[in-house]
Amino acid sequence: MTSTISMGQYLFKRVAELGIEHIFGVPGDFNLTLLDELFKVQELNWLGVCNELNGAYAADGYARIKGMPGILVTTYAVGELSAMNGVAGAYAEHAGMIHVVGMPGRAVQEARLMLHHTMEPGMDQTVYVGMAEPIRKTHTILTDEKTMAQEIDRVIEAGVKSKLPVYIYVPMDVVGIPLDASRLEKPLNTKVVNTNSQMEDEVVKSTLELIKKSSKPSILADVLTIRHGGRELARRLASATQFPTYSTPLSKGVFDETDSKYNGVYNGEVSFPGCADSLESSDLVLNIGFLLSDSNTGGFTRKIPDGNLATTTAKSTTKVSTVFISYHSAFPNPTPGKKVEVHSPLTQLFTYCNKQILLINNQSQTPLLSTSTSGPITQSYIWQRIGRFLRPNDIILTESGTAQFGLTDAVFPASTQLITQTFWSSIGYTVGACLGALVASKEAQKQKQKLSSNSPSSRVILVVGDGSLQMTVQEIGSYIRFNFTPIIFVINNDGYAIERAIHGPGMGYNDISMLWDHQAMLGFLGAREETGIKGRSFACKSVEELEGVLGEEDFAGAGCIQMCEIFMAKLDYPWRLSAQIAVSRKKMAQALALQA
Amino acid sequence: MTSTISMGQYLFKRVAELGIEHIFGVPGDFNLTLLDELFKVQELNWLGVCNELNGAYAADGYARIKGMPGILVTTYAVGELSAMNGVAGAYAEHAGMIHVVGMPGRAVQEARLMLHHTMEPGMDQTVYVGMAEPIRKTHTILTDEKTMAQEIDRVIEAGVKSKLPVYIYVPMDVVGIPLDASRLEKPLNTKVVNTNSQMEDEVVKSTLELIKKSSKPSILADVLTIRHGGRELARRLASATQFPTYSTPLSKGVFDETDSKYNGVYNGEVSFPGCADSLESSDLVLNIGFLLSDSNTGGFTRKIPDGNLATTTAKSTTKVSTVFISYHSAFPNPTPGKKVEVHSPLTQLFTYCNKQILLINNQSQTPLLSTSTSGPITQSYIWQRIGRFLRPNDIILTESGTAQFGLTDAVFPASTQLITQTFWSSIGYTVGACLGALVASKEAQKQKQKLSSNSPSSRVILVVGDGSLQMTVQEIGSYIRFNFTPIIFVINNDGYAIERAIHGPGMGYNDISMLWDHQAMLGFLGAREETGIKGRSFACKSVEELEGVLGEEDFAGAGCIQMCEIFMAKLDYPWRLSAQIAVSRKKMAQALALQA
Repeated sequence: MTSTISMGQYLFKRVAELGIEHIFGVPGDFNLTLLDELFKVQELNWLGVCNELNGAYAADGYARIKGMPGILVTTYAVGELSAMNGVAGAYAEHAGMIHVVGMPGRAVQEARLMLHHTMEPGMDQTVYVGMAEPIRKTHTILTDEKTMAQEIDRVIEAGVKSKLPVYIYVPMDVVGIPLDASRLEKPLNTKVVNTNSQMEDEVVKSTLELIKKSSKPSILADVLTIRHGGRELARRLASATQFPTYSTPLSKGVFDETDSKYNGVYNGEVSFPGCADSLESSDLVLNIGFLLSDSNTGGFTRKIPDGNLATTTAKSTTKVSTVFISYHSAFPNPTPGKKVEVHSPLTQLFTYCNKQILLINNQSQTPLLSTSTSGPITQSYIWQRIGRFLRPNDIILTESGTAQFGLTDAVFPASTQLITQTFWSSIGYTVGACLGALVASKEAQKQKQKLSSNSPSSRVILVVGDGSLQMTVQEIGSYIRFNFTPIIFVINNDGYAIERAIHGPGMGYNDISMLWDHQAMLGFLGAREETGIKGRSFACKSVEELEGVLGEEDFAGAGCIQMCEIFMAKLDYPWRLSAQIAVSRKKMAQALALQA
Repeated sequence: MTSTISMGQYLFKRVAELGIEHIFGVPGDFNLTLLDELFKVQELNWLGVCNELNGAYAADGYARIKGMPGILVTTYAVGELSAMNGVAGAYAEHAGMIHVVGMPGRAVQEARLMLHHTMEPGMDQTVYVGMAEPIRKTHTILTDEKTMAQEIDRVIEAGVKSKLPVYIYVPMDVVGIPLDASRLEKPLNTKVVNTNSQMEDEVVKSTLELIKKSSKPSILADVLTIRHGGRELARRLASATQFPTYSTPLSKGVFDETDSKYNGVYNGEVSFPGCADSLESSDLVLNIGFLLSDSNTGGFTRKIPDGNLATTTAKSTTKVSTVFISYHSAFPNPTPGKKVEVHSPLTQLFTYCNKQILLINNQSQTPLLSTSTSGPITQSYIWQRIGRFLRPNDIILTESGTAQFGLTDAVFPASTQLITQTFWSSIGYTVGACLGALVASKEAQKQKQKLSSNSPSSRVILVVGDGSLQMTVQEIGSYIRFNFTPIIFVINNDGYAIERAIHGPGMGYNDISMLWDHQAMLGFLGAREETGIKGRSFACKSVEELEGVLGEEDFAGAGCIQMCEIFMAKLDYPWRLSAQIAVSRKKMAQALALQA
């Protein structure tokens, strides 16, 4: 006799198999019975969020720490559409997400009934499925009982391998359909297999030739290295070769920044001079996991030969002296904790280089931007100061805007993990993503405790501007609800500073409400005497005040949720933001001059 | 010499021509220069909102009061995608919206640069344009200088006529392009013209025949009557004919509910018995501006012959004894304050009926559901009590959920306007929509003052549940920022009550954070001593406490922003919600029995 399992439980058992323990979402009448099945799977926990966009951000943040897709459950139409911007961001930045959407039952779809959440008489109820096409790797609508199990497997596997969002649409009448449970005995195949080993071998061979000829090689590891699980491998490559290493704005933290071989964040013309000079004088750059967007290339001003930036990411490409190693298709995705077994450019290079340690001294120092010890808090002071506040293993999230550009100047402790959305750049993102990072960090900590490891738990630190905070503020209530204790820095500088830097510094459209009482925020959302949940709030208008807070042991200990409001001048911007904008303006002017 | 006007100003001048004075949106680097042009148009004011979904909700709420599309300005990708759910709701419920989206410049699009807010190398930057296709009537991308002006006109006209969302995409390099200003001298053509007068004549003729033969006729005016500007006309028809009148859940308020001919809200099996009996015993129903969705037809249980509910809305249709008069294409859209000049079914009927006053007495009374004067606040008590709190000209918004179903039981004063989203049903909607209603109401008040009219200003009253509030709470800060003084009722009943009523009343997925301190909300968001903005908050756990608040003159006067938190039991639901769910369950069971 075949034992069976409901479709819903089958889906969630597969999710649990990935090591995932928490699922984000919002209930709706088309997903309630599906959630019943979720609640029957002991390995998983439901985390209801305030709205679906925040939920997508949370799933994205979770994926970036977990190394596995975040799971988001929404309801038909209203829920799935609200999440779209968050899902698109996970697509752009390869965060990975499995978006499970509850739908009307199959018979109702067939009859095209004019249900709530449809839009007009006789509407094809799969119309929203089509709208999400560009922001996912693949999808399935579970209508056919015969193929449901394999479809679930196919889509989850594609999501894990590609690190791109995938969608599973679940008509509400199928959640209880019995599927063959024995299928679960065969694990999902989530290993990325090299489909073109010949090409890969050629890339490796030519790369090795270049390395042998090179007198001044370097490694520039970009963000897709991290997203596709290659951070440790890149670190090992760096250690084996002793080549000087560089990160990008998006990949900051990929290397140990306290290591003597680390040279800083390379971002074309928007780099510290020493850093740019040293990289650009290399005769070979191993550019791993690259993502060549405007703000990640100093507005397309990298002075290393990288051909047509817009078209080279899709496959591994060998250039005169830049080797691009892509994570898009050819590269294996090592499961955390497991030995990488398949061959790949990076592992092959590693194997080679490990035997031929090269010693090259090429280091550039990060300049200290401010020696302030008193007075107003400036952009030149704050970011490196926050950098010095960080401890090993911290997770720090910087919101798109001044925080994101500014914190690039900080020097990170060894195992800092940065979450920032420099490419997709949706403001408000970090408030949701922080919830996901908190959850993934908690799961990792639990895992460590099981292994009786003594490694310290990660602090999760959020830096968000006042305008971005207003987008998604309610999710801070979820940190409190679920007993998390992040440290939140709120930059109070009177509106959308990044927009002021770009255009219209004094214009009203860059204003926000300045009436919010940030000091009352944690209390309003749940941390106050009456609830028994401790929260602490601080307001700092001077360097002295901020030093007082940052130097306090209790604050740094992160024993309860804390918010530190930092007041800064409205028209003060990080130099990197100003430089990035100046580059873009220059390029635009040149383009116009060419046209004229 | 031809005088010129910038593309941006041309667009906004056309918007101002519609009588619109306020524009909602969020700035982003792809719309900043467009906003510069907006700021040069004196007739218009910018209202920056906290996020784009809330902005779409606000534009929708504005349109419902203004009778003209709300204008929403967002930025490329992150902004436009965040707004999607709100735009789709405006589509479903014919609220009307002109969504203006700032895009990368044309040359940048051409080069397919990997800008922030794109998703991958070489991406077609119009990919998001395609995603919004199902949720709009029409769109234009302003790339061709020769056709820009006419494209703007075409799309705005389509938006005004159809009451459906339309999109105008503005590449950032085109905002300053000089267009021929003289074109503005010719007003937009926003009048809906009857394109098939022969069909219309036939409908009118056969309807008149039916009226002549009828001994018990009635008028059932539904929500599209209101959306397409026909409320006054419907009222005049009712007055001229003296036929008994009925509304639907979505159209509640379309008729003067204090009028002796008004019989209540007809919603199939989910109606008060007297109301359903009287309508269903009619031998002729003039069903105007119908929208036959599940929750607006008692789960498809109307007992009047209306053929295939799912397919009749697209055109005027004559049935044995039900006349459907559609607003989709054939019906004129009277501009408020102007005499309707074109012929149409309704005006022709009006002209006829005005000459032959029929006197029919058919009235059903609304039962009083609770006579509570003390003790816990129940669903059976609260809604009719809030109904008695209303004054003529009030605008009331009820959130999807218990508030929406419950308030159907109230009896409205003469000119009450209801905003509720029974068809699209996106929770959190009313918090954004309330901002739009406040703005439109202020514009209307200003207009009245210009005409030295003494009509009292509208109070705007929001009723929202605790779960829905958490979706969109930040926008309450915008009410405060822009000096509005709505009365906000927050139903504190421990989570998503509508979902509990549907499924899983005790399940954790229907829980929300119960840690929020609603009493601190207005202070946190700006109304407190320090800012000099007055706000008042109340908490009511008993009928006595609530009666005390509702009876207070200051509270009713709405001189400052006020929030009244009403505590109700977790598992108490309005009878209409329970009845609607019971009907749906019965139908589902029948369908399954048929399948078996």
